[in-house]
Amino acid sequence: MRFCQSFMTELHRHLGEDTDIPAGDIGVGTREIGYLFGQYKRITNRYESGTLTGKGLGWGGAPVRTEATGYGCAIFVSEMLASLGTSFDGRRVVVSGSGNVAIYAIEKVAQLGGRVIACSDSSGFVVDEHGIDLELLKQVKEVERRRLAVYAERLPRATFVPGGSVWEVPCEVALPSATQNEIGVQEAIRLVKNGCIAVGEGANMPTTGEGVRVFLEAGVAFAPGKAANAGGVATSALEMQQNAARDSWTFEESERRLEEIMQRIHDRCASTADEYGLPGNYVAGANIAGFTRVADAMLALGVV
Amino acid sequence: MRFCQSFMTELHRHLGEDTDIPAGDIGVGTREIGYLFGQYKRITNRYESGTLTGKGLGWGGAPVRTEATGYGCAIFVSEMLASLGTSFDGRRVVVSGSGNVAIYAIEKVAQLGGRVIACSDSSGFVVDEHGIDLELLKQVKEVERRRLAVYAERLPRATFVPGGSVWEVPCEVALPSATQNEIGVQEAIRLVKNGCIAVGEGANMPTTGEGVRVFLEAGVAFAPGKAANAGGVATSALEMQQNAARDSWTFEESERRLEEIMQRIHDRCASTADEYGLPGNYVAGANIAGFTRVADAMLALGVV
Amino acid sequence: MRFCQSFMTELHRHLGEDTDIPAGDIGVGTREIGYLFGQYKRITNRYESGTLTGKGLGWGGAPVRTEATGYGCAIFVSEMLASLGTSFDGRRVVVSGSGNVAIYAIEKVAQLGGRVIACSDSSGFVVDEHGIDLELLKQVKEVERRRLAVYAERLPRATFVPGGSVWEVPCEVALPSATQNEIGVQEAIRLVKNGCIAVGEGANMPTTGEGVRVFLEAGVAFAPGKAANAGGVATSALEMQQNAARDSWTFEESERRLEEIMQRIHDRCASTADEYGLPGNYVAGANIAGFTRVADAMLALGVV
Amino acid sequence: MRFCQSFMTELHRHLGEDTDIPAGDIGVGTREIGYLFGQYKRITNRYESGTLTGKGLGWGGAPVRTEATGYGCAIFVSEMLASLGTSFDGRRVVVSGSGNVAIYAIEKVAQLGGRVIACSDSSGFVVDEHGIDLELLKQVKEVERRRLAVYAERLPRATFVPGGSVWEVPCEVALPSATQNEIGVQEAIRLVKNGCIAVGEGANMPTTGEGVRVFLEAGVAFAPGKAANAGGVATSALEMQQNAARDSWTFEESERRLEEIMQRIHDRCASTADEYGLPGNYVAGANIAGFTRVADAMLALGVV
Amino acid sequence: MRFCQSFMTELHRHLGEDTDIPAGDIGVGTREIGYLFGQYKRITNRYESGTLTGKGLGWGGAPVRTEATGYGCAIFVSEMLASLGTSFDGRRVVVSGSGNVAIYAIEKVAQLGGRVIACSDSSGFVVDEHGIDLELLKQVKEVERRRLAVYAERLPRATFVPGGSVWEVPCEVALPSATQNEIGVQEAIRLVKNGCIAVGEGANMPTTGEGVRVFLEAGVAFAPGKAANAGGVATSALEMQQNAARDSWTFEESERRLEEIMQRIHDRCASTADEYGLPGNYVAGANIAGFTRVADAMLALGVV
Amino acid sequence: MRFCQSFMTELHRHLGEDTDIPAGDIGVGTREIGYLFGQYKRITNRYESGTLTGKGLGWGGAPVRTEATGYGCAIFVSEMLASLGTSFDGRRVVVSGSGNVAIYAIEKVAQLGGRVIACSDSSGFVVDEHGIDLELLKQVKEVERRRLAVYAERLPRATFVPGGSVWEVPCEVALPSATQNEIGVQEAIRLVKNGCIAVGEGANMPTTGEGVRVFLEAGVAFAPGKAANAGGVATSALEMQQNAARDSWTFEESERRLEEIMQRIHDRCASTADEYGLPGNYVAGANIAGFTRVADAMLALGVV
Repeated sequence: MRFCQSFMTELHRHLGEDTDIPAGDIGVGTREIGYLFGQYKRITNRYESGTLTGKGLGWGGAPVRTEATGYGCAIFVSEMLASLGTSFDGRRVVVSGSGNVAIYAIEKVAQLGGRVIACSDSSGFVVDEHGIDLELLKQVKEVERRRLAVYAERLPRATFVPGGSVWEVPCEVALPSATQNEIGVQEAIRLVKNGCIAVGEGANMPTTGEGVRVFLEAGVAFAPGKAANAGGVATSALEMQQNAARDSWTFEESERRLEEIMQRIHDRCASTADEYGLPGNYVAGANIAGFTRVADAMLALGVV
Repeated sequence: MRFCQSFMTELHRHLGEDTDIPAGDIGVGTREIGYLFGQYKRITNRYESGTLTGKGLGWGGAPVRTEATGYGCAIFVSEMLASLGTSFDGRRVVVSGSGNVAIYAIEKVAQLGGRVIACSDSSGFVVDEHGIDLELLKQVKEVERRRLAVYAERLPRATFVPGGSVWEVPCEVALPSATQNEIGVQEAIRLVKNGCIAVGEGANMPTTGEGVRVFLEAGVAFAPGKAANAGGVATSALEMQQNAARDSWTFEESERRLEEIMQRIHDRCASTADEYGLPGNYVAGANIAGFTRVADAMLALGVV
Repeated sequence: MRFCQSFMTELHRHLGEDTDIPAGDIGVGTREIGYLFGQYKRITNRYESGTLTGKGLGWGGAPVRTEATGYGCAIFVSEMLASLGTSFDGRRVVVSGSGNVAIYAIEKVAQLGGRVIACSDSSGFVVDEHGIDLELLKQVKEVERRRLAVYAERLPRATFVPGGSVWEVPCEVALPSATQNEIGVQEAIRLVKNGCIAVGEGANMPTTGEGVRVFLEAGVAFAPGKAANAGGVATSALEMQQNAARDSWTFEESERRLEEIMQRIHDRCASTADEYGLPGNYVAGANIAGFTRVADAMLALGVV
Repeated sequence: MRFCQSFMTELHRHLGEDTDIPAGDIGVGTREIGYLFGQYKRITNRYESGTLTGKGLGWGGAPVRTEATGYGCAIFVSEMLASLGTSFDGRRVVVSGSGNVAIYAIEKVAQLGGRVIACSDSSGFVVDEHGIDLELLKQVKEVERRRLAVYAERLPRATFVPGGSVWEVPCEVALPSATQNEIGVQEAIRLVKNGCIAVGEGANMPTTGEGVRVFLEAGVAFAPGKAANAGGVATSALEMQQNAARDSWTFEESERRLEEIMQRIHDRCASTADEYGLPGNYVAGANIAGFTRVADAMLALGVV
Repeated sequence: MRFCQSFMTELHRHLGEDTDIPAGDIGVGTREIGYLFGQYKRITNRYESGTLTGKGLGWGGAPVRTEATGYGCAIFVSEMLASLGTSFDGRRVVVSGSGNVAIYAIEKVAQLGGRVIACSDSSGFVVDEHGIDLELLKQVKEVERRRLAVYAERLPRATFVPGGSVWEVPCEVALPSATQNEIGVQEAIRLVKNGCIAVGEGANMPTTGEGVRVFLEAGVAFAPGKAANAGGVATSALEMQQNAARDSWTFEESERRLEEIMQRIHDRCASTADEYGLPGNYVAGANIAGFTRVADAMLALGVV
Repeated sequence: MRFCQSFMTELHRHLGEDTDIPAGDIGVGTREIGYLFGQYKRITNRYESGTLTGKGLGWGGAPVRTEATGYGCAIFVSEMLASLGTSFDGRRVVVSGSGNVAIYAIEKVAQLGGRVIACSDSSGFVVDEHGIDLELLKQVKEVERRRLAVYAERLPRATFVPGGSVWEVPCEVALPSATQNEIGVQEAIRLVKNGCIAVGEGANMPTTGEGVRVFLEAGVAFAPGKAANAGGVATSALEMQQNAARDSWTFEESERRLEEIMQRIHDRCASTADEYGLPGNYVAGANIAGFTRVADAMLALGVV
């Protein structure tokens, strides 16, 4: 708390709801944001909610923040499948990881009709052909904070595989949501061989550059994290919107907005890829769309 | 006007839409708020609407402000009845007073299906078993600003009782909306005996501490003013929301929002009372919910 | 760009989203607003979008801005017709001009069921009894930026009349949307004789004072520009609303809001005219309503 | 007072000790500056003394303000005489007027050894070959506020001449300190013929353009008001210096500073005239020095 | 330190070198002022020295602060004696106390030619007819922080009297510099009888109201603390002057300024007493002069 | 100019006369400071002179800036000699370089009675046993900007030595004012052998660490640049003082202040060296005094 307060005493003059807006990240959660916001408020004598995001629900925070990245990733992939003329419906899905991103990706995939048959943690992975039992998964990982083996112990129909790679499990859709570089060339080739038609990155850069190339060449629909896991940042923007309007939306309204944003991101990636002669290449679409948007605005606002 | 301007010349530096926001009260109506706001605007050179509430409709004010407290109280009691598995429908209701709060409480009770059979002013009370004729009441009290006896003179079916206590009129629901301490032990006992099942405070603390105890012990659903008449303050918040979004809602939208807020307050009081082992005790629920909300936020924002 | 930047360096201290808000005008379009906004942002270190309107869509601008004046004018006239118990449906309409205002007035009139049979530019006018082909008109004027004669060349059913006055074409509704003073006494008399029942000014003061008198005396419903072409300024306000709420509406939502505003302006003009004993006189209605609104607010905020 | 306060309520945002600093002038004396300063202080909550000059001695004002213009003019001429190798010593001096400027010019001339033999008011002029009795003059004009005839009544040695021009009195040094255009061609020729060797303008432009030409051609040392009566403005700067240093100088220190400033102005005029090939031409010297100083600073600070 | 920082976090917005300037007092010395100033600087990002006084010499403080009250009191009395046509020269002086105020009053009295023959502490008093040995006194009280008895132990010529009142020692000038109410009616009568001609209060109100009356009636020159011990506050103003000019004076310059200020205070008290028909009454002079100065400025700055 | 303006547009918010104050350096002279200051003034609308130093004399700059480093170095060495019981009087002095620092060091040494017999430039050095003719030196180096050989050509008594090291010329005092590392071990040993008793660094670190050790071990009085060439920075502080007081000192007053500052720096270095048991070691004295001053202030202002 002392650190947060002292940090903000120096930082506050560089922030502002129209200037620069910090959000939490690794090691900076709601608790730290609270101390930072409290000191900002104390010094400026203003309850300027929009200056920090990731606030607690009782003092300016927004719903769907925890779920945002996982939900967003599933929604993006759902859009991608739709643009291929198909859907999650009845498809076998593998989600790596079993943290925040993975759990809510699984939840949303299930809502969208998909069947998540495997997920993982650092100790191994679990396969459950009937579809992951989300309640049980949350109980084991969020409440009890134990290993996935426990999931299989409690649910006989499931199998726990210690140590191996979850990407060996054949699937039609893969949502790598665990960690950086978890899908290299080998895993990518395996996924392609197993009939995977779509990949959505829930984590930050879980696929290596070479892995990405394997997917693109094989015609697998590939959603890069830059676009597919933007749900978290998008929810910061939604929090700022609520603060600006002194409003506080319901979970449903927030989710609806998140969905719209993810669809818009998907469409912009897709249409930009088309426009630049690379239809279906979401990597190029995301890069080009992001770059041109910033560059256009810079030019429009005049050179220095 | 000179006083308001001079007052604001000193006060303006302590105000701001994110700092501190005065609203009118006894003796400070739209006229005074206008002079204060005008001087604030003159000095700061900013049309910062959110800095004062209770503004006129033509320059940043919000609809439903006049009706807010009365409507809110009726809505709260309606929610309370619903949680008891019943409603206002067909019930005999007595509302003390015939000012702003009482008139709009009567209006809303009527809309919700209740029958308000008596109301009062400082000269006595009127009983009208067919239900108070609201148009006539408004004509007598708001337009002509006369005594309630006039109501009975114009409407033969009604009876005017000079001087006595309106709480002698048997009713199922009582909405004390006149003045402080109007329901003491005697009145409370009388109401209980007459079969009153719910009481909602439209005024500020119209029931004495001992009166409250009588109601709680008799199992009467009792809505304390702290929660039941929050409609006025809530509408200040709605005015600030409209100012923040540079918007101006319709009467209907404003009323819908007020309704939502009153329901939320009701639910929070009820659920907090449950949580702390005092189901149905709205007094405890309101106190605990209010205290913990502030205390939690203070802790979250860090000690000084 | 240098001029815009230098201008803003001096101007910025007199602006602010709650202080004074410039918008583009003749010679100041999105490009110049961009340079001005960029410099404002650079100096204040705040991305205070609401300080300038007419911004580009990628950096805080609002949809329907281009269409606003033309749409608004058609909507106003539609309301006016409705208050006369009739509508655009099937009526012959002439719109002078073929710029921004005219094109979108034509578009909206067509949507509302009217048939625009003539429009003009500085070289003459075109008559097309089947109703102007909007796609072709946009192609000729917006894309190719050529004369109206080209319209008639491409569409054999249409006739191009070089040089003359479009107001010679008999019509039931006239929307002068070209330039100042285009309808003098002569044109007004001609329109009245030809059976014109309603006139809506899309341009700024296209009708001379004497022309207005002719219409009023002949009982023609006359919508003065002050009210009828307020759609552009109204959309600036909508842009500020979106900026304030950090939101960005769809085209449909923006159009719906524009429609509401135009209806409200119409109604206020009409009811004010009624109130002051001049039913149907929109000129008086607009002047009186505008004046009293400002005067009332000034009085409410206190004399200096 | 109300006017001053209201005026400052609007003006205050454009002022500041480093921004723009108003001073009193015709009709705005210490009393009005007090009301303006009081309102500035009230609104800004800062006792920012340097923002207004001409303040009262008890709240930030500076000594020698009343005497400044008259003293300054006499000092300038004294320097001018010195640069001609001579001095005021024993010389016959005529000072027109008998207001603030004239009285303190007379006082300083006397201190510098000159003999002021005549002064004037709107009713005529008085000649006193022994030298004006300053105490008596102050008594008549400052305390009793009467006509100059009274001076002659009380002091038999003096002669009062009603109506005529004081410039008919032969003198070696002339200090026109009454009003604009009091010395035209005729008066200038008369002064030259009478052996006048130096003229110093205490008033604003008391000599016509043609009168100036007469002096310059006759080789009379001519000190233009632009330079010679800068003592008042200079004392505003001294007041700001004292405010900046939270200091308050004695009369002697203030006078010493004023003297230094007047000498510096004289020297700059003289040296600039030399530099530009017009030795002894203080008119050219003052104009060129003033212009180049401002122009040089503008260039040094960069074009916009 | 934490307390000072937290206190300043809330207080800083009400301070400023032109707004309000706190100084140390009981329990708030250089150490606390340092922590307060540090936090002020941290939050405002400005090294605004003039906002607090009593700073350390290394970071904006001023010399002569420790000596100011004692020196100032002796100087005031010296002026008072001068106005009676006499001086400290060779006179017997008693100074009560032996803290900061007393020690530096003794030092200055000695410099001015007086002979301080007694001083006291809470344990008693010491009499030294040769004049207090200041070096020894400082050694005992400031360095060793011991009782006055030690002084007499080390200096055989001196006598220590335990417990009694120092005012029994016959003297011509008395400077009560120990504590409130140390001179009551008895002590005052004793002093008068012993031939005391002047009293100067170094402490805050060391003489009771009745004691003052005894002195005034006996014709003793009496300098009230309000004026006589203003040296401390005066030095705060000198510190602010140095801060404003970013300067730092020598001890000598500071002392010279302090002397000037004390003389000015003396003269204003004396002349105000004269003006109001109470010559020699410094109590009345100080009260009236203080009141009129503030009242005149308030009137000059305009009523609210 | 464009670069300076653009740079200041971003930088201005981090500056302020009490916050951070840039000064010129290599490549940033009066011209660039003017553009920076102009843009600062334009954006802030405040003529806040103290925010930048090195300004032009016509717009807030201070005299003695050009001479400050050279003068300061000579003064410091003069003090050092005085503390050794001797002076510059009649001593042989060598000054390396012939730029700003060297020329004004030579000027001041001459004023202080020393005889500068040699100086250098990148082409070699000149020896003039009668003492360098300063007028000629300035003519050759400042006006004509030519090589030192020209000096010897014009003054037959002088000898120009191409290429060699000026430190071969025997001298009693050496002021290295040319460049970094010009005195290494060899040069130091040579100087010691030649009887040099004092060295003052006019340049930044002209003596290597080993060279310094040679001097200290040989008992040569050595003035490190950190202290000896502080005259430039000190004059920035004097410029700020003049700006703060809205004053502008004469050359003489500025020089007197510079002298006082250099003496104070000298005395603090000397006394600190004494205090820490290293009498005469100015290197240690300067380091320790500088460090403790900053450290003491940091502690006094409280930890973060």
